[in-house]
Amino acid sequence: MPHYQYFNGEIVPLDQPVFQTNDLGILRGYGLFDYFRTYNGVPFRWDDYWQRFENSARLLKLPLPVTQQETEKILADLYAMSGETEVAFRFVLTGGYAPDSVHMVQPNFLIRTEALPQDNPAGRLKGIKVLPYEYVRDLPEIKTTNYVHMVLMADELKRQNAADLLFHKDGEVSELTRSNIFIFHGDKLITSDRNILNGITRRVVIELAKADFEVEVRPVTYKEVITADEVFTTSTTKWVMPVVQIGDLPVGNGQAGTRTLHLQRQFEELVAHWGK
Amino acid sequence: MPHYQYFNGEIVPLDQPVFQTNDLGILRGYGLFDYFRTYNGVPFRWDDYWQRFENSARLLKLPLPVTQQETEKILADLYAMSGETEVAFRFVLTGGYAPDSVHMVQPNFLIRTEALPQDNPAGRLKGIKVLPYEYVRDLPEIKTTNYVHMVLMADELKRQNAADLLFHKDGEVSELTRSNIFIFHGDKLITSDRNILNGITRRVVIELAKADFEVEVRPVTYKEVITADEVFTTSTTKWVMPVVQIGDLPVGNGQAGTRTLHLQRQFEELVAHWGK
Repeated sequence: MPHYQYFNGEIVPLDQPVFQTNDLGILRGYGLFDYFRTYNGVPFRWDDYWQRFENSARLLKLPLPVTQQETEKILADLYAMSGETEVAFRFVLTGGYAPDSVHMVQPNFLIRTEALPQDNPAGRLKGIKVLPYEYVRDLPEIKTTNYVHMVLMADELKRQNAADLLFHKDGEVSELTRSNIFIFHGDKLITSDRNILNGITRRVVIELAKADFEVEVRPVTYKEVITADEVFTTSTTKWVMPVVQIGDLPVGNGQAGTRTLHLQRQFEELVAHWGK
Repeated sequence: MPHYQYFNGEIVPLDQPVFQTNDLGILRGYGLFDYFRTYNGVPFRWDDYWQRFENSARLLKLPLPVTQQETEKILADLYAMSGETEVAFRFVLTGGYAPDSVHMVQPNFLIRTEALPQDNPAGRLKGIKVLPYEYVRDLPEIKTTNYVHMVLMADELKRQNAADLLFHKDGEVSELTRSNIFIFHGDKLITSDRNILNGITRRVVIELAKADFEVEVRPVTYKEVITADEVFTTSTTKWVMPVVQIGDLPVGNGQAGTRTLHLQRQFEELVAHWGK
């Protein structure tokens, strides 16, 4: 288990409270984050994650208190102190302390070192069930900390043996709570490009898929999803995860699709050799 | 200036960091709050505020760690330790520490003692300008900590000499960022009842207004607002605040309305004698 975190220039124990309570992240939900992991001890697609983090910060008008190079040094220190082979890093940037609880003065920047989450290896082979949920994220292109619906529905997901929510609105599907969606109609691979967070794993999978499939990046209807031959979802922790059931409806024949498993293997090979 | 806060059973200095960083309020924006103040040292409409807090907690599935009576004792201690004649209290209840950053285990409960905000006395007499903003709050009946748009637009408001945003969507007006809306058409007073937080000041003003005006509580269109004779907004800190300009449009003759000022005086008398 990692035991350290970085906060505004210092490395301190992971369980040490660091934010004063007038932080706008706590009081006003004014915060953003990013999350990525190492493979073979090397942060995966670090430039992409940094760029997305920078983009979120810019859109929330938060100046970054450190450069990419400075952050690399911090990550190297945190990794060395973790004593682990692989770790995940969670960046959190908030609006900072606000004397009037409204106006930003200076952001607070936290980096947590975390143990790798359980990657649901059973789900990768068998596929997962998701529940359709009428919702579209506010400011979807920003990785804000607003995941209220995900936490609110966590118990209901368990109760229904489902692994995630599939967000849809006005007949269009955007994403899952923390991951992107892909569908296969025959050899055509389609992924949503509207009201989504631009996933790094999504980007990698699009790159990989272009060798073998026709790839369309465009709005996706709910009907296209439930009539697809194969559906899968991608994220930093899920990799390429087959979706085999949407609510009560099986996807295709209800088993992980062959094209999906092909992409999954390609992704796994990529990360197995990452940094080598 | 008050110097103390309560956190999970203890009273500690106000600037002491108390939340560990895996709190769901910080990581996932999973938190709610409430905010009220004393008049003559006595919390205003305490039962109403407590009930609303309880309701928010229930809707976010967060069990309250203390009873109303226990909380009263804490408030009395914090008030005594503040050395102030009047204080404001800010309750914050979050999803608590989540080892997996998703599932709730046990909420964290914070009470901050705060100095009274500047109540914009000039605005009360002259009225304020607001900017129309296309948005409706997510889960509006819950006082969640999600005020991202308010913080994001704070600089733009200043730049345009405006005091607040007026939320509207699909031709309907809901509320301002932290306050409710009322309009007068002649002697008819109308206030929105949909996609709003149920303001306690709103409730008090409805009670007061019934003596002198016909009061309608129902959805309000944007058109009704911009063609109203008088517009005002209510909140714990704003009391009864005339709105005299919406974007570029003056409301009525562009001055605080007489009916609005009548209600404002009634509210001021009520709080002046509160607890006596």
